[in-house]
Amino acid sequence: MPNPPLSSAPPSVPNPEPQRERVGYAVVGLGELTSEALIPALRTSQHAYLAAVVTSDIDKGRAVAGAAGLTDADAYVYDDFEQLSTRSDVQAVYIVLPNNLHRDFVERAARMGKHVLCEKPLASKTQDAEAMVAACKAAGVRLMAAYRIQYTPEHWAAKRAIAEGKLGAVKLLSSAHTQVEPTADTWRLKLKHSGGGPLMDVGIYCLNTLRFLTGREPEWVFAAQHQPTDDPRFTEVEESLSFMLGFPGGVIASALCSYGADKTTSLRVLGDGGAALLDPAFVYSGLKLTLSGEGGDTLVRFPNYDQFQLEVDHFAQCIRLGHEPYTPGEEGVQDHRLMDAIYESVRSGLRVVLPKLSGTDLFRTVSNQPAQIQPGR
Amino acid sequence: MPNPPLSSAPPSVPNPEPQRERVGYAVVGLGELTSEALIPALRTSQHAYLAAVVTSDIDKGRAVAGAAGLTDADAYVYDDFEQLSTRSDVQAVYIVLPNNLHRDFVERAARMGKHVLCEKPLASKTQDAEAMVAACKAAGVRLMAAYRIQYTPEHWAAKRAIAEGKLGAVKLLSSAHTQVEPTADTWRLKLKHSGGGPLMDVGIYCLNTLRFLTGREPEWVFAAQHQPTDDPRFTEVEESLSFMLGFPGGVIASALCSYGADKTTSLRVLGDGGAALLDPAFVYSGLKLTLSGEGGDTLVRFPNYDQFQLEVDHFAQCIRLGHEPYTPGEEGVQDHRLMDAIYESVRSGLRVVLPKLSGTDLFRTVSNQPAQIQPGR
Amino acid sequence: MPNPPLSSAPPSVPNPEPQRERVGYAVVGLGELTSEALIPALRTSQHAYLAAVVTSDIDKGRAVAGAAGLTDADAYVYDDFEQLSTRSDVQAVYIVLPNNLHRDFVERAARMGKHVLCEKPLASKTQDAEAMVAACKAAGVRLMAAYRIQYTPEHWAAKRAIAEGKLGAVKLLSSAHTQVEPTADTWRLKLKHSGGGPLMDVGIYCLNTLRFLTGREPEWVFAAQHQPTDDPRFTEVEESLSFMLGFPGGVIASALCSYGADKTTSLRVLGDGGAALLDPAFVYSGLKLTLSGEGGDTLVRFPNYDQFQLEVDHFAQCIRLGHEPYTPGEEGVQDHRLMDAIYESVRSGLRVVLPKLSGTDLFRTVSNQPAQIQPGR
Amino acid sequence: MPNPPLSSAPPSVPNPEPQRERVGYAVVGLGELTSEALIPALRTSQHAYLAAVVTSDIDKGRAVAGAAGLTDADAYVYDDFEQLSTRSDVQAVYIVLPNNLHRDFVERAARMGKHVLCEKPLASKTQDAEAMVAACKAAGVRLMAAYRIQYTPEHWAAKRAIAEGKLGAVKLLSSAHTQVEPTADTWRLKLKHSGGGPLMDVGIYCLNTLRFLTGREPEWVFAAQHQPTDDPRFTEVEESLSFMLGFPGGVIASALCSYGADKTTSLRVLGDGGAALLDPAFVYSGLKLTLSGEGGDTLVRFPNYDQFQLEVDHFAQCIRLGHEPYTPGEEGVQDHRLMDAIYESVRSGLRVVLPKLSGTDLFRTVSNQPAQIQPGR
Repeated sequence: MPNPPLSSAPPSVPNPEPQRERVGYAVVGLGELTSEALIPALRTSQHAYLAAVVTSDIDKGRAVAGAAGLTDADAYVYDDFEQLSTRSDVQAVYIVLPNNLHRDFVERAARMGKHVLCEKPLASKTQDAEAMVAACKAAGVRLMAAYRIQYTPEHWAAKRAIAEGKLGAVKLLSSAHTQVEPTADTWRLKLKHSGGGPLMDVGIYCLNTLRFLTGREPEWVFAAQHQPTDDPRFTEVEESLSFMLGFPGGVIASALCSYGADKTTSLRVLGDGGAALLDPAFVYSGLKLTLSGEGGDTLVRFPNYDQFQLEVDHFAQCIRLGHEPYTPGEEGVQDHRLMDAIYESVRSGLRVVLPKLSGTDLFRTVSNQPAQIQPGR
Repeated sequence: MPNPPLSSAPPSVPNPEPQRERVGYAVVGLGELTSEALIPALRTSQHAYLAAVVTSDIDKGRAVAGAAGLTDADAYVYDDFEQLSTRSDVQAVYIVLPNNLHRDFVERAARMGKHVLCEKPLASKTQDAEAMVAACKAAGVRLMAAYRIQYTPEHWAAKRAIAEGKLGAVKLLSSAHTQVEPTADTWRLKLKHSGGGPLMDVGIYCLNTLRFLTGREPEWVFAAQHQPTDDPRFTEVEESLSFMLGFPGGVIASALCSYGADKTTSLRVLGDGGAALLDPAFVYSGLKLTLSGEGGDTLVRFPNYDQFQLEVDHFAQCIRLGHEPYTPGEEGVQDHRLMDAIYESVRSGLRVVLPKLSGTDLFRTVSNQPAQIQPGR
Repeated sequence: MPNPPLSSAPPSVPNPEPQRERVGYAVVGLGELTSEALIPALRTSQHAYLAAVVTSDIDKGRAVAGAAGLTDADAYVYDDFEQLSTRSDVQAVYIVLPNNLHRDFVERAARMGKHVLCEKPLASKTQDAEAMVAACKAAGVRLMAAYRIQYTPEHWAAKRAIAEGKLGAVKLLSSAHTQVEPTADTWRLKLKHSGGGPLMDVGIYCLNTLRFLTGREPEWVFAAQHQPTDDPRFTEVEESLSFMLGFPGGVIASALCSYGADKTTSLRVLGDGGAALLDPAFVYSGLKLTLSGEGGDTLVRFPNYDQFQLEVDHFAQCIRLGHEPYTPGEEGVQDHRLMDAIYESVRSGLRVVLPKLSGTDLFRTVSNQPAQIQPGR
Repeated sequence: MPNPPLSSAPPSVPNPEPQRERVGYAVVGLGELTSEALIPALRTSQHAYLAAVVTSDIDKGRAVAGAAGLTDADAYVYDDFEQLSTRSDVQAVYIVLPNNLHRDFVERAARMGKHVLCEKPLASKTQDAEAMVAACKAAGVRLMAAYRIQYTPEHWAAKRAIAEGKLGAVKLLSSAHTQVEPTADTWRLKLKHSGGGPLMDVGIYCLNTLRFLTGREPEWVFAAQHQPTDDPRFTEVEESLSFMLGFPGGVIASALCSYGADKTTSLRVLGDGGAALLDPAFVYSGLKLTLSGEGGDTLVRFPNYDQFQLEVDHFAQCIRLGHEPYTPGEEGVQDHRLMDAIYESVRSGLRVVLPKLSGTDLFRTVSNQPAQIQPGR
């Protein structure tokens, strides 16, 4: 018998609810993330389960379905997406497609009355993101932007520490999210599919998390980018981009993102009475939060958990209880508007002033905060 | 679309083989480890899948089966264990029961011709462990001791660094594995069920890993323990135990284990040209290996992986290819003999000299090393 | 007898040369840095020694002199600075005064034919810095800007790793240097004395080290700052400032500095084949350099050393051997010009384009690199 | 002007008292420790200063004296040690000689009425250590054992955390102190000079610090060692040694020491409510203390300080105020007795039971605790 796990585990056995009481998801798009993270999370979640897969290649779909314990009948091709309308056991779809395809599938899902969990960025263009929000509203279905970082205990502990004044008044923030895209043949590097370069895919983590942690919206932005002229990977999108944000009260944040630099995921918050460091800040597991203040640096420990499970379970609970998700489509739209401003600053070389937005957590559902995992081990 | 994972992931999609080509496991015992780690691992493994569950309570069994996507018919109670003999899709059983029950179920599984993966320690008594090995041999089935630490890339990288002389000649080792058992009502604290205290359950990691890393068998052992007289948890077994091992060539190791001390899992190897530190060394995820030598301390990085998946996949491959597992029953028996000597030293207060065993990796199947995950990210 | 130190120590005993062969320094200004760091460094250096002190208060000067093993006659007040002209044992002066006083004392020292080691920033205004360079040149004495970060083994190891391509092509950099100035009554917060806020005093480390590590000069700069209206500390200078630099080849750096945020000193370099992290990056001892690449993160270890000793010894050797110091006055002037551009960007809200400068290490004496401490322990 | 140091520095300037009010030390023995650590500490201490040096070679003595700002007249050879009796400015001698010479010089110093700070171990034999204590007592001078680890803020913070129950009840401890002695030609490897191998020189840190942190005396000891037969370095003393200590209440500690293994200095304390880790634990600077408990691991930060300065200043204050030092000779004698028992266990292969000693901090001067540096930065 092995030793018990580090964590004081969730209590009851069996942990998950019976499948028939859980929310069935159809996952649309069978890339690496789906097979490595989402399907495992759905198969071990509390409130959700994998009910169907949708892909371009029926053979691949059936193979994945089979591997996941489903039947051939649970695999669909994109053209047959609407067949899910007859599947009452599929209450939600999870869109894991190239950005430019999000809108079409979200709208089709909404028309079928299916709730939608959509990967970030919400779309390849702001107007598409806005249309998705409108379509879901019109159809009376929930739309959640898959910002997993707004569901992890580490980021929530940092947000709470800031809100409770543990760092004193926040003054400066910085963040970096970089990685190397090794080859040119990915949709991420095609402007039409992605809508932009590293900003859209990795920089958005910096942007979204800076907004989440401060709870505020920036008042201005400045940005610069590098797009090499001799690298076949970067004929359509930038290689690296750096942006600076001005938040209310003179708080300044700076961020770096890249598809051409060594993997780094980091976020630092500096207050006049302490500091918080998340490093790594955005990876799928092993996030580390250090809170610094008088007397020392504390690495805050949490029990093991699965980031994707927290996400799919939150949305499943929203569906069952009729709640708006903590990160609704509007949260994703706001990032799109800010990314537009960032690219505008790159183009113009000028600081771009944004519409003034007072208040905190303006685009989040503060009445429906995600379930919290407490520090401990 | 989220950013790709840190790791250069295993290549093909779908990752797992089709279920019909994988090895079906029946898991016997539905405790926390099973629900939190083994079933998830079996559901996302490459070469194995969960085919049945066996437990004391049919309702719980059916609930777990259902939660795992199986049917009521896949749940069995202990008395009906032999019904698995008709299940040709169940090729292996994974025994996750209190130590004293291992022997009975291993022998019954062997009689059905099922291969057996058995949790550590192999039994509650050495003679039971020996009997299990004999029974499986007689029945022509494979028996693997579930020493997950002998399947992780971090421990293999440490073992290789030692074998290749990266640390110079090894001189000293130390290890600790401690945790707090909060309440008295666990079978681990009942001598009849467990066969012993923390040594049997957590100290065995120190012992086994010291043997694995050096590849050698100790020549003598000295040990001391503490068993409080006023703590209801420790009426039958020790609270804490410390042992010292003498390895060939004058290499000395010392180890600490406890059910009454803060969670610690650590192992250090000191050579005359460098050092290796595993800390944490034995937890389920997030192991860290630091190799030190001229010029600095290198934290070796590996792609994400699931420790239990590596274990169940190794045994599945052994079954399909007709190989002896890397950690056969004999490896488990040897730990039992050494734990007997440790307890004998505690009782006598004397150093206990062990039978001399020359050679390296005497109880492991060196011809069938586990598949290796290479450093990288 | 204690155990020998970690480091393989410098060989001969006694380590320092006989005092009469070393270079005598007069230290001008007896603040905290002088008493805590410079005098100890001078007293244990290899090639230098403390010969005199100059201050505003003769009693304090005599007390410091006495405590340092000098006599009352070795203490001078500022007005008597020129009495050092008769002290042939004083070959160098180390200026540790408020920024706006640097120029006067440097020019007076030059007129006496004394070589000058001057704290950073070189002055409170660019034109003063330029005048100081001219005055020393005219007088035939050496002027060294006290950029200790250009003399430490950690920063040199990072610079070498970059130059040798260990990180691949550098893409992005970030740095932060922040601290809390607790009270308003320091000359650092008086514009006339300091010439500016945290940029001049702590942000200059980011700026100078980014230039040092890349070896390049920025082509443009953008900056923003925060100066609260209700904080008595910041009536004259900014509280926090963030700047972005565009280096040749599209390399972008961002930096944060503050007098109102928790102590942080950090610098990160991201290449397409690896990364370097210095954290802490700018403190007086315990700098940590981590180089990341395939296979892991290596914390590079160095023997113990004294940063200030490296500085005063380098300059002492320059004086004895007739060499230009590695960081001559011109290096300090260039930072002044860049800080002017940063403040101009703050004022205008616009990106400021800088004169194009090709080549590497343009303001450093590449023929006279500081003595190198090799990794080891 | 450089940025202020991390620490909130000791307040007044000049930090040290005037030299005539400080305690003058004669340092006896001019090895590496003296030149690299003790003389710098004495030259920058608060209450002490270097007044004279004593060595075997008058030229070396004069060179060291000169380098330290003393005159030729301040250098003495061992035979002229008694000339210090006329030096009223020399109130203390610091003995930094091979262990077997300690007794002679301590007794000679006592006869001159000089107070003695003596390096650890106090002697090469227990009876010499006892004689030293008696001689100083008879002469009415203070004798302090130079256990610098009992004067650092990190170790005191750990001791306090234990005493205040921050870790709960202490259950287990482990420690390691190892290093490679590269060549055979050091007195440390000569039994006559040293009295023993790594136990006497580095293992004593483990022993002494385990006693200091728990405040208790062990009840039994078991030990084993390795002395290779083919290594010219270890013809007289052991290469590696491991010992286990039984403390009152069933607390067990294990320790490793070596002259043949990679530099490691570590100490871990495991309680039922938390843990303390010192790593590095025994080096001259950069000690790190991590306290673990519910919610996380806290790295406790302290302002910069000089370990040797704390030691020499403590003893200087004892002399001036007429106090017994916190670590009097008796503390050193107790370690000798325990090391005798450890070697006896090695020889006999048996556990050695020690005289029962009740109470806490039996050999320390609890009424004269060293001045405390508080956590902070």
